[in-house]
Amino acid sequence: MTDTTTVELEHALASAAAVAPSFGDLPLDRRSAMLHEVADALDDQRDQLVALAQQETHLPGTRLTGEVARTTGQLRFLGDVIDGAWLRATIDTADSSDPVLRPDIRSMHVPLGVVLVFSAGNFPFAFSVAGGDTASALAAGCPVLVKAHPGHPHLSARVGALVKEVFGGAFSLISGVDAGRAAVVDPRVKAAAFTGSLAGGRALYDLATGRVDPIPFYGELGSMNPVFVTPNAARARGEEVADGYVASFTLATGQMCTKPGLLFLPAGHGLEERVASRAGAIGSARLLEDRITQSHAAAREALRATAGVRVLDDTASDGDDSTRPAVLVTTVAELGDGSRVLEECFGPTSVIVEYDDDDELIAAARLVEGSLTATIHAEPDDDALVERLVSELRGRAGRLVWNGWPTGVRVAWATQHGGPWPSSTSALHTSVGAAAIDRFVRPVAFQNTPQSQLPAALRDHNELGIMRRVNGGLTTDDVHGGGTA
Amino acid sequence: MTDTTTVELEHALASAAAVAPSFGDLPLDRRSAMLHEVADALDDQRDQLVALAQQETHLPGTRLTGEVARTTGQLRFLGDVIDGAWLRATIDTADSSDPVLRPDIRSMHVPLGVVLVFSAGNFPFAFSVAGGDTASALAAGCPVLVKAHPGHPHLSARVGALVKEVFGGAFSLISGVDAGRAAVVDPRVKAAAFTGSLAGGRALYDLATGRVDPIPFYGELGSMNPVFVTPNAARARGEEVADGYVASFTLATGQMCTKPGLLFLPAGHGLEERVASRAGAIGSARLLEDRITQSHAAAREALRATAGVRVLDDTASDGDDSTRPAVLVTTVAELGDGSRVLEECFGPTSVIVEYDDDDELIAAARLVEGSLTATIHAEPDDDALVERLVSELRGRAGRLVWNGWPTGVRVAWATQHGGPWPSSTSALHTSVGAAAIDRFVRPVAFQNTPQSQLPAALRDHNELGIMRRVNGGLTTDDVHGGGTA
Repeated sequence: MTDTTTVELEHALASAAAVAPSFGDLPLDRRSAMLHEVADALDDQRDQLVALAQQETHLPGTRLTGEVARTTGQLRFLGDVIDGAWLRATIDTADSSDPVLRPDIRSMHVPLGVVLVFSAGNFPFAFSVAGGDTASALAAGCPVLVKAHPGHPHLSARVGALVKEVFGGAFSLISGVDAGRAAVVDPRVKAAAFTGSLAGGRALYDLATGRVDPIPFYGELGSMNPVFVTPNAARARGEEVADGYVASFTLATGQMCTKPGLLFLPAGHGLEERVASRAGAIGSARLLEDRITQSHAAAREALRATAGVRVLDDTASDGDDSTRPAVLVTTVAELGDGSRVLEECFGPTSVIVEYDDDDELIAAARLVEGSLTATIHAEPDDDALVERLVSELRGRAGRLVWNGWPTGVRVAWATQHGGPWPSSTSALHTSVGAAAIDRFVRPVAFQNTPQSQLPAALRDHNELGIMRRVNGGLTTDDVHGGGTA
Repeated sequence: MTDTTTVELEHALASAAAVAPSFGDLPLDRRSAMLHEVADALDDQRDQLVALAQQETHLPGTRLTGEVARTTGQLRFLGDVIDGAWLRATIDTADSSDPVLRPDIRSMHVPLGVVLVFSAGNFPFAFSVAGGDTASALAAGCPVLVKAHPGHPHLSARVGALVKEVFGGAFSLISGVDAGRAAVVDPRVKAAAFTGSLAGGRALYDLATGRVDPIPFYGELGSMNPVFVTPNAARARGEEVADGYVASFTLATGQMCTKPGLLFLPAGHGLEERVASRAGAIGSARLLEDRITQSHAAAREALRATAGVRVLDDTASDGDDSTRPAVLVTTVAELGDGSRVLEECFGPTSVIVEYDDDDELIAAARLVEGSLTATIHAEPDDDALVERLVSELRGRAGRLVWNGWPTGVRVAWATQHGGPWPSSTSALHTSVGAAAIDRFVRPVAFQNTPQSQLPAALRDHNELGIMRRVNGGLTTDDVHGGGTA
């Protein structure tokens, strides 16, 4: 896949902008059917696509097969979400006591326009060409340009062709750093979504917000996903915690945005041997790209060299182009604002941080930057400590996980995948789940508008049968007597 | 009112940050009662406050009295909106077929943290110290720092004292450009809202998005609010349109963010005399501040000097420190991208733009930048033209007004006050109405969390009685059988 030329980019942007109005005006069930069509095509070609992905990303086939299922489930779910929920249809009929100052106002969400998606390397299906960002933008009615990730170019081209087959001019695949940078500042692009590194995301965020006409930039960047284990939980379920931790941080060779990078354990937990043996039992594996192998090795080396940090099991060594999991250990007392231990190390490395008492655990929670997730392992007796923890973590994470592990994100209505900076550029949004659509729509109000000129969702007769807020109350009823001529 | 010192600012930020958690955790009806209390206090002192406002802003007393009513109505409305709608409580119970991959997830909106509000000069009540930004942030559960507008310092201090009386450490008033700039980059501030000029808003937006940890910046900036009159409407109701236009663009001496800055009329409309006589009948008035008098005079002079632009009635001249309304006339043919005619002129100046045919009208609509509003005057026969207009304008405005005037904003559920750049820094949000609260909250998800650790809004038993989305459907019912222990 060669880099997109200036002429090709212009063509992609021009077609996206040209079809934006008609694509945004398609009946909801038509766009839903198109998303289902893409899902079906991906399922049909699953085995060939997984083989290609395996070759390009070195991720295991079972994991990739599961990811295809998640991706097609997501496409269908977002298609079905187009049931009107995200339209936010709201109607205030004129106040007959003062119809001039309180006229009939009806508002709803409309598509934002052309959306640019930067796909991720670590989820070649679910966060890539036909992933959540693309699916939610298309569901919202926005044409999409996807900037392919260089880690899986052939897979991107194959999946891109499938999507283009269904969506035509409303979808294009572009590639190359220059094309991505040119697109993010093009006036025809109205929003951008990104999943990747803090440095890369920040650079693009700065371009998007630095435009003459700034646009929203939804970046999912780095995340530490700290796990807090109470003394009671460590005592009651220590081995289960140790095993779950290793399984979680080594999943996909540690290349998950929700990888637990920090495990807070009470001093004297006695779980070192268990963690070391579990981690040691996991063989080395090749990371997504050579540059990630190198940057991970460098980051791990820097962690090893940090004062107060020791390596749990230093006997394991990496292969030539493969990487083994590593666990490092330190104490809360050694931490401080800006400690390297608190920075994401993308890959199969994680740090156990030991704490002395409850106050130290709470102090540690305050040191952790914004994160996609925070996890608590606790027992029923721990309510007082847990309450303090939850109150600290609620402001620092998008999802609080209870007695589980952060890896794995359910695609549903309540899903929140996004958190305070630096885990996301906007803590107000999610890149997974039903609400992901909200990123790509904006409200428009119609004042005293005749029925014939109103969108179907806002007419007196609720012909779409959707839930609407009418004069403050939620209802699927028609509007009676309040309509304008 | 002297500028806030560094020490005073530190104190205000520290108290806001300190009370943020407890203020955010107050029961909803407690915060609602507090907002009602402020509204009552403002109503009680209305006459003294209006007198003070009149002295500082030169706005007419009747207008200011109406503005107090709107402001107190807004405080009460936003207090009452805290009925759970904006909480967006969403529950997906665990999928029993695969509870590991599809665990119980429950999400809701929580307050974002300390909010900084830059108040406006042209609405000393409704967009100032106790205005919509402050009310919606407090309603959301966010402590607020208001940066007072220099145009009405004494009024700001008086209103600020009233709000502080009720909200204590969750509210502070600051003043001075330096304090405002220091606050917008302070790590304790989590969002900022602004109403004012494009230049001022852009500078603050750049500070907010340029932070190490960027924050959302909701700016309501300049807006042209174009009005499009079809040939049929000009024929059928020409004089009514002319009168309404003059009344609207001269309201509050043209110092409204929704002032119609452009009126598109068919060539040969024959309404010049009517508009000139109506505008001429309106006396001169003093603008909000001397610097606005000067900048308005300079902008009007530049418009007069623009090629292809003529003045409708050049006999009127301004007084020493007062300004008369002025209407200028040009044609679509004279317009072009970047024409000065398409730039906001804050004050009682507006431009009539004549078009030759439907295509020229549509072409003109495409030249107008993002706007808070766009207005259409049409007759029932105009459906084809109107459809084309609506389709262009929907992407360029936050509110489409039908056969009316853009000045005047109803505070309600469906209200949208915000539009594409440069009218707002975020077209996705509104600064007026129920949805204004959405700017200051973010979603948090709880995974497999015990009932005792869940916020009340997310427990199985719907003790708040709010509308929730449970497994995809909206309901006020309790959750049965799906809860975690």
